[in-house]
Amino acid sequence: MHRTTNTNAMLLLRHCRCLTRVGLLKTQRVQLLQGVALPVAVCSSHRGHKSGQYQRSHGPNWRHALAGLLAGTGAVLAYGLHHSQTEQAATTIVQPIAPASSLPIYTQDEVTKHRSVEEGVWVTYKGSVYDITEFVSMHPGGDKILLAAGGALEPFWALYAVHSQDHVLEILSEYKVGELSAEDRRMQQSVKSTDPYSTDPERHPALRINSLKPFNAEPPAEILSDNYITPSAIFFKRNHLPVPQVDPKSYRLQVEGVPGGAPLSLSLEELKTCFPKHTVTATLQCAGNRRSEMNKVKQVKGLNWGIAAISNATWSGARLKDVLLAAGYMPEVVRQTSHVQFEGLDSDVTGTTYGASIPLNKAVSEEGDVLLAYQMNGEDLPADHGYPVRVVVPGTVGARNVKWLGKIIVSEEESSSHWQQNDYKGFSPATDWDTVDFKSAPAIQELPIQSAITQPAEGAVVERSAEEVTVKGYAWSGGGREVVRVDVSLDGGRTWQVAQLQSSEKGQVPAPSPPPGRAWAWKLWELTAPLPPAAQELEIVCKAVDNSYNMQPDSVAPIWNLRGVLSNAWHRVKVTVKEDEEEQKLL
Amino acid sequence: MHRTTNTNAMLLLRHCRCLTRVGLLKTQRVQLLQGVALPVAVCSSHRGHKSGQYQRSHGPNWRHALAGLLAGTGAVLAYGLHHSQTEQAATTIVQPIAPASSLPIYTQDEVTKHRSVEEGVWVTYKGSVYDITEFVSMHPGGDKILLAAGGALEPFWALYAVHSQDHVLEILSEYKVGELSAEDRRMQQSVKSTDPYSTDPERHPALRINSLKPFNAEPPAEILSDNYITPSAIFFKRNHLPVPQVDPKSYRLQVEGVPGGAPLSLSLEELKTCFPKHTVTATLQCAGNRRSEMNKVKQVKGLNWGIAAISNATWSGARLKDVLLAAGYMPEVVRQTSHVQFEGLDSDVTGTTYGASIPLNKAVSEEGDVLLAYQMNGEDLPADHGYPVRVVVPGTVGARNVKWLGKIIVSEEESSSHWQQNDYKGFSPATDWDTVDFKSAPAIQELPIQSAITQPAEGAVVERSAEEVTVKGYAWSGGGREVVRVDVSLDGGRTWQVAQLQSSEKGQVPAPSPPPGRAWAWKLWELTAPLPPAAQELEIVCKAVDNSYNMQPDSVAPIWNLRGVLSNAWHRVKVTVKEDEEEQKLL
Repeated sequence: MHRTTNTNAMLLLRHCRCLTRVGLLKTQRVQLLQGVALPVAVCSSHRGHKSGQYQRSHGPNWRHALAGLLAGTGAVLAYGLHHSQTEQAATTIVQPIAPASSLPIYTQDEVTKHRSVEEGVWVTYKGSVYDITEFVSMHPGGDKILLAAGGALEPFWALYAVHSQDHVLEILSEYKVGELSAEDRRMQQSVKSTDPYSTDPERHPALRINSLKPFNAEPPAEILSDNYITPSAIFFKRNHLPVPQVDPKSYRLQVEGVPGGAPLSLSLEELKTCFPKHTVTATLQCAGNRRSEMNKVKQVKGLNWGIAAISNATWSGARLKDVLLAAGYMPEVVRQTSHVQFEGLDSDVTGTTYGASIPLNKAVSEEGDVLLAYQMNGEDLPADHGYPVRVVVPGTVGARNVKWLGKIIVSEEESSSHWQQNDYKGFSPATDWDTVDFKSAPAIQELPIQSAITQPAEGAVVERSAEEVTVKGYAWSGGGREVVRVDVSLDGGRTWQVAQLQSSEKGQVPAPSPPPGRAWAWKLWELTAPLPPAAQELEIVCKAVDNSYNMQPDSVAPIWNLRGVLSNAWHRVKVTVKEDEEEQKLL
Repeated sequence: MHRTTNTNAMLLLRHCRCLTRVGLLKTQRVQLLQGVALPVAVCSSHRGHKSGQYQRSHGPNWRHALAGLLAGTGAVLAYGLHHSQTEQAATTIVQPIAPASSLPIYTQDEVTKHRSVEEGVWVTYKGSVYDITEFVSMHPGGDKILLAAGGALEPFWALYAVHSQDHVLEILSEYKVGELSAEDRRMQQSVKSTDPYSTDPERHPALRINSLKPFNAEPPAEILSDNYITPSAIFFKRNHLPVPQVDPKSYRLQVEGVPGGAPLSLSLEELKTCFPKHTVTATLQCAGNRRSEMNKVKQVKGLNWGIAAISNATWSGARLKDVLLAAGYMPEVVRQTSHVQFEGLDSDVTGTTYGASIPLNKAVSEEGDVLLAYQMNGEDLPADHGYPVRVVVPGTVGARNVKWLGKIIVSEEESSSHWQQNDYKGFSPATDWDTVDFKSAPAIQELPIQSAITQPAEGAVVERSAEEVTVKGYAWSGGGREVVRVDVSLDGGRTWQVAQLQSSEKGQVPAPSPPPGRAWAWKLWELTAPLPPAAQELEIVCKAVDNSYNMQPDSVAPIWNLRGVLSNAWHRVKVTVKEDEEEQKLL
């Protein structure tokens, strides 16, 4: 799916490019900027910023916008906007761009003076100088583009590999205004741009990669349900930034903000030895799991996950509750509406770390089972999963299970991070990027009931002679709500059969039923049913029910949302029934 | 809807009766019973009982079957079965029944000897003697019919008013075998049968009655959303048995089974004065709310509720947690998987009381807010709502909010009551009364996300000249999950608009947002939208989302279940747009 979507988007871009061969001189662009009220970029994470506000926005707020760029499809959309705006201008002012050789030479000092919309926003790339003032409001990653203002693009593009595409260079070329002086070019080349992803770990070749930098990948669906406990190597990976290199010897976990308590700093050894080790089997799911099905309805912004951005593992570590008590947590002192914020050690070029928060009541509940985990499936956490320490918040969306944990802060406020405030929230299908108000929706915490079919795969062929078909899949619900039933249909949802549920590895004694509200792990399920006579095609559908009797919605369109999260409609797979040759002859 | 369903069922019965005018002599009936393997009654709550097991079943188990009879539609279905079986026999043995005058005279002593299937099951009614042996397995209420064996039917029929129908007498007449002796008739008449419902309280005439004895009624939907706090008089009533008369002076609440504790007995005064008074605004909903929509798909068993078996009130009382602590509850001693059982003071003729249980963790949680309430909306509990004390379990299905509370028992087992074990559970649409295994599904506790449209009503007319339409309704979710959005469609679900939510009385300051997991009260909602041009009919649809982002399923059929519970698909209302006369002339 990912490839298909990108191909379509590329075709669209090529079409736009044909219409915009004719560019503008810089002065004309400035006139355009002043004379035309530019629409705010559709994909900016910070909507409502006027160009005049750019400088004032250089506070912590704009840093959170950094995450927006990671949404590859959104970027493509924004580049589309860039082109349509250029096209609009081109119809009124048609004048060929001056050839490169006739452009002036600038020194780095001159470039450095252009760091604001008022003064113009200039950048350099491979020895050329570009005035991107006009592009700033169209930049898919929002105004974080101003980080590069007055300097080189290379280190930023190294961080966000989405820029390594031909059409990005093509867009850039239209803004070229000069060449960098020979001396400054030599200086620049001596500062080698390093790839912050160069120290990322090796990954299992079976993984299906959605984005390489940062690394985002899921296992093939058909092997996902082979194990009740997903092997760590194929457990889905969802990184927002480069994997940080953490030295376990010098590692410290900071705990702050506990009312009436004192800041606490723990070594890895202290975390392991001063607190009881607690083990929980918990399923983690990305909010964007099954986003590709929403993309089929209407393009959304985000990684194009299939059905396998979900996995199940056994996690061991200290209870967050115990660590908070050690830091002086007293229930009677802390407001019930407080939050526990987490900061990762993964950061972008500006030093902004990944961050998220959960409600305090989940963090301190005896039955919340929130862990500061240092083991996954009985071994040290793998680098991709947060070595040496990550948060595991059972029943809660993956995004709050902060990896490479550096800091814990008890606060009356939620995390101010981009991912808590302006991402990972659900909206009505009526809400688009022009009308969305991220403040109007709660940050996703518990996830709704979910299930999907892992076998057979879409388009598979079932032999009529087999007489029956076996359907397999997974089912899980957030908030510790236990899956109590999975219904499977072979006829598109007209009639249903109840699948067998499996809550341990096949052949092993099933685990005892978890206490109420603490069913953190998925159930695998399986149904073997006779092939319906005469059917040439089966539309296999599954839907699960949890013990609060929440059901999955029937269809995707009514739950479609602009970020493509919470995609939990009935899962549908079409397979073909192949008649035996003998029978085919008779037909 | 209720009326329509019953009318249809009556027509069906009349049809059956035409075919079964010819009855059988008793001896022939016995032959039939021995020779033919009778199917188990379709509506019996205790499936799988063979006739030979009737005597053995005289333990606590069969008592729970009593509740089955309250399902009026199920009873009608069973009478249908009776007729089709009689019909089957009639086609082979055609012989007219002897006229009444020629039937023998029996003494009460002789009747009393017939109290089992082996000896025959005889009963008396208004001086006549009936051998109902053959009917036992067809009785809709299960084998509780054996309660009357050897005695008079009158007191049982007085309890279950469903018997006050002509066709019941008609069925009975076919089993007549004699007359009671004159002396015994005189004796029987002197024992006046009393109506156990005669002391039920007066009710508000606006209520729409689903069943009079026991009393079950809902307010008209269009007035339900007029108040954020539903006035007690029109709060939906869901009684399973007659309203008990409880003397507040002699009332005692028994608390038993707390491991390591001692039994506790509390007067009403002690409950009010020895424990802090806690107030909670909580919505209660019957599991069968909106059952009528399931009935439209396929007939289910249960009261034919509309959309108003849900209401919102303010409850005050002692915390259950505090009372359990007073009874010696110690978290470290009690198993986490334990339950807290409740017994009502309402009982049937056998003394079986209404009963239910909730998981212990809900009962003792600081944040569970479970009350032993003695006030509703600031006044003593009304008789219909459990005077003097009821349990209020916020976020949990109405059936566990036991009224007229008599006893609390901490136990490792759930309540053994019919309503916990063999009722109030959800099943797949594929499950029918022949395949249902009540042990396979969990007792409903938390309810799923729900919403419905209270205005306009189905079939209403909207004037084109009004230019806009206002839609109102309620939304609520179980488990303390807060409703965060309601989407409304005017075109059957194709496009959506976001409604305004209301969490207090109109014009009052909205209540502060509840702590996470403690949103016990519904939200009312409203949307005023322009009338779509050219539309002659609007199909208005609503769907709600809670803060775990659970959504309502799109359609009813895939969530249909044999008991008609958990009916929470999108709610749909069709209204007509009336063109202005001027415009109509132009058309």
